Amino acid sequence: MQANDIVLEIPYGTRDFLPHEAAEKRQLETTLADLFASWGYDEIVTPTIEYLDTLTMGNGHVLEPHMFKFFDKNNRTLALRHEMTTPIARVAASRLKDETLPLKLSYISSVYRYEQTQTGRQCEFYQAGVEFMGSGTAAADAEVIALAAEGLRRTGLQNFQICLGQVDFINGIMQQFQLDDAMQTKIKAAMEQRNLVGLEALLEQTTLAKSARELLRRLPLLHGGEAVLAQAYDIAVTEQSRRALDNLAAIYHLLEEYGVAGQVQFDLGVIRDFNYYTGMVFEVYTPGLGFPLCGGGRYDHMLSDFGSACPATGFALGIERIMLSLERQGLRMPQIRKDIYLAYAPGKLAAALHKAQEYRQQGQVVELAPAAQSEREAADYQTGKAYQKLVYIS
Amino acid sequence: MQANDIVLEIPYGTRDFLPHEAAEKRQLETTLADLFASWGYDEIVTPTIEYLDTLTMGNGHVLEPHMFKFFDKNNRTLALRHEMTTPIARVAASRLKDETLPLKLSYISSVYRYEQTQTGRQCEFYQAGVEFMGSGTAAADAEVIALAAEGLRRTGLQNFQICLGQVDFINGIMQQFQLDDAMQTKIKAAMEQRNLVGLEALLEQTTLAKSARELLRRLPLLHGGEAVLAQAYDIAVTEQSRRALDNLAAIYHLLEEYGVAGQVQFDLGVIRDFNYYTGMVFEVYTPGLGFPLCGGGRYDHMLSDFGSACPATGFALGIERIMLSLERQGLRMPQIRKDIYLAYAPGKLAAALHKAQEYRQQGQVVELAPAAQSEREAADYQTGKAYQKLVYIS
Repeated sequence: MQANDIVLEIPYGTRDFLPHEAAEKRQLETTLADLFASWGYDEIVTPTIEYLDTLTMGNGHVLEPHMFKFFDKNNRTLALRHEMTTPIARVAASRLKDETLPLKLSYISSVYRYEQTQTGRQCEFYQAGVEFMGSGTAAADAEVIALAAEGLRRTGLQNFQICLGQVDFINGIMQQFQLDDAMQTKIKAAMEQRNLVGLEALLEQTTLAKSARELLRRLPLLHGGEAVLAQAYDIAVTEQSRRALDNLAAIYHLLEEYGVAGQVQFDLGVIRDFNYYTGMVFEVYTPGLGFPLCGGGRYDHMLSDFGSACPATGFALGIERIMLSLERQGLRMPQIRKDIYLAYAPGKLAAALHKAQEYRQQGQVVELAPAAQSEREAADYQTGKAYQKLVYIS
Repeated sequence: MQANDIVLEIPYGTRDFLPHEAAEKRQLETTLADLFASWGYDEIVTPTIEYLDTLTMGNGHVLEPHMFKFFDKNNRTLALRHEMTTPIARVAASRLKDETLPLKLSYISSVYRYEQTQTGRQCEFYQAGVEFMGSGTAAADAEVIALAAEGLRRTGLQNFQICLGQVDFINGIMQQFQLDDAMQTKIKAAMEQRNLVGLEALLEQTTLAKSARELLRRLPLLHGGEAVLAQAYDIAVTEQSRRALDNLAAIYHLLEEYGVAGQVQFDLGVIRDFNYYTGMVFEVYTPGLGFPLCGGGRYDHMLSDFGSACPATGFALGIERIMLSLERQGLRMPQIRKDIYLAYAPGKLAAALHKAQEYRQQGQVVELAPAAQSEREAADYQTGKAYQKLVYIS
C-alpha cells in the first residue's frame, strides 16, 4: 500500500455518499422534514458531541462500550451521540422546560455506534424521528406510529409491516413469576434477540413451574393479527399485563382510523434494545431486510431522570436503511436533475455566462463549461455528465 | 449544582438549535443546496470522522492541536473533520478519480475545531460550500465567487463585501526579498491576523533594506477598488507577482459580467488561515461582524497530495455566521408555518384525526390535540403555540 492509499481510506464503519446517494439522502430528509413539520412537529438540532454522563442517563450505560469517547481539556469524558432521544429529552428538560405541553419535536441527525457493522448499520448513520412529549395517551402513541407509517409511504416504500408490542405486558408476566432483576434482564435480552435456544437455557436455570416456563417460551411467538391479543389476555394474570393489552387494543383501534391498521401486526416479543421504554414499542420491517427500518415506543421516565417528569413517545427512522429498502424493492427516489450544459467558443465566455444566468433564473439546472470548447468536446461532456441538452454559444 | 444540572449541560463550544433556529438553519441549507444544484454542483456527504493522517494531508498539521482526536480499536488516530475541502479532495482522488473533469461538488456539513470560542465561531459549526476541481481558469475562480455571492443574496443578506486577494502576489514579493521559509510563514501569519505591530517587530528582525520593509509594511494596507491593482503592479517586480495580478484582473473582469463586481474590493493582505491556497483567495464580510461569513480560494496542489494532480477552487459559507448577520441586519428568514390547531370534545378523536388528515392533504400544517379538550383550553393552546386558526370538533 502506498502512502497515498493510506490517506485515501476512511475509518471502519463510515461511508461516503457519492452524488446520487447524497441526492437521494437529501430528498428523503427534506420529504421527512416537511412531513414532520406538517403534523406540527418542530425540528431541533443538538450537538454531535455530548457529555458521556448525559448520554448514559437513561440506560445508556448499556451502550457505553459502543460509544466513541474522548476527553475535553478539563478531562471530562465526551462522546458522540449514540441516539437522539436522550439529547432531545435533555433539551426538553432544560431550555424548553417552560413551554406549554405537549412538545412535539423532530430531528434529522447523524448518530454513532462503534460496533460490528452489518448491511444497513454503520458506525456513523443517519436517523429522522420525532418525540411527542407531555402526553401519556394512546392517541399520542397512535399518532407517532401513524406518522412513521406516513413517512415511509412518502419515501415511496410500498411494502412494510409495523410490529407492535408493549414492554409492560412482559414486565407484568415477569412480575407474576417473581423473577429477580438479573434473570429478567437476561430473559428479555434473549427474547429481544429472538434467541430461543438461549431462552430455553435460561428457563432451565430458574425454579419456575413447567407451566410458567411454557408460558415464557410462548411469549416471543405471540405475533400476528388481532387474535394474538385474545391469546395474550389468556396469559395475562397481573393487572400490569392486562393494562398493557388494553393500551395496545386502544392504539390499534386508532390506527384503524388512521388507515394503517392493515400494516400492523402484534408482536409481544418486541422489546427494543434501549431499556428506557415503558409502554408501547414498535418496529417496522420490509421483506428481505433482516433489521427494522424504524423503531420507537413510549418512554415515560426519561424526562424525570433529567429533572422534569413528563410522559413521552416517539420513533426513529433509519435513513440508510430506507435507501437500502427502496433499492431492494426496485424503487429509487427521483434522481439529480441535469438540464443544460452550456459551452462556448473562444472569446464567448461573457455571452455564455449571461445565458447561463438567464436559464437559471428560469429554474433550469445549468452547468457552464470551465473554458472554451469545440462543439464536439462540449457534446462529449454533455453526454458524459448526462445533461438533457447542450447549448453552444459560438 | 445538582446531579441533573450537570447532565443538562452541553460541552464547551457546542449549541442546541431551538425550533426557530433549527427552522432557519434548514431553510438556509435547503436554499443553498438548491442553488448549488442549479449551477450543476453535485452534493456529496463524507464521514464526520476521518483518519488524522488524511485530514493533515494538506497543511492540516497546523490545525492539529485544534482537532478533536481519539483512537479506533486498532489504535489509529481518528479526528472529527475540521474543514470539508480535504475530505472532498480525498473522495475526488479516490472514488471519483475516473469521472470526467471538471468535477463540481458541494456539501452542507458540520465541522469541528477545538479552540477558544467567539461570537459566530463555535467548536462545532456548519458550513455550506462548493469545490470546482479540474480547471485552473480565471473563469472557474470567477464562477465560485459569483456563486458564493448569489448564495448570500438568496439567504436574504443585503449588504456584504467580497475581499479578493491572491497568495501568489505575496509569495512573489517574499521570493523577491529572499526571506527564509520560517520568516515568510511568520510574516504571512502577522498579515493574516492584521497584526501590524507584530509585523513591524518581525521586519525589525530581518536584514531587509529600508525600502523593502516599507513595501512589506504597505502590503496589508493594499485594499480598495481597481486603483489598488495599479498600485500593486508598481510594487510587483517578480514574474510570479505580476502573473498573480493579471489573474486577479481577469477574475475581476468576469465578476463584472456576473454583476457582482460592485461588491468586490481588492485586498492583497487576504491570505486565509489554511496554507493550501495557491492563487486567488477571498473572504466575504458584512458590516458589524468582525469575521468573514465566507472564505475560499484556489488550491492547486491538494489533489496531487492525494495522488491525483488537478487544479481546484472553492469556498465555504458559515451557516451560523449567516444567521447572525441576518439577525444583525434585522432580516430573519421566513419562520415556522403553523396553520391549524385541531382540538376535539370527548369521544370525537376519530372524527378529529380524519379532519386533520384531510387538512394535511390540502397542504396545511395541522397539530392534533393530544387528548379531548374544552374549547377554552384549545383556544389557550392555539394562542400559546401561535397557530393561525383553531378548528374544534364537538
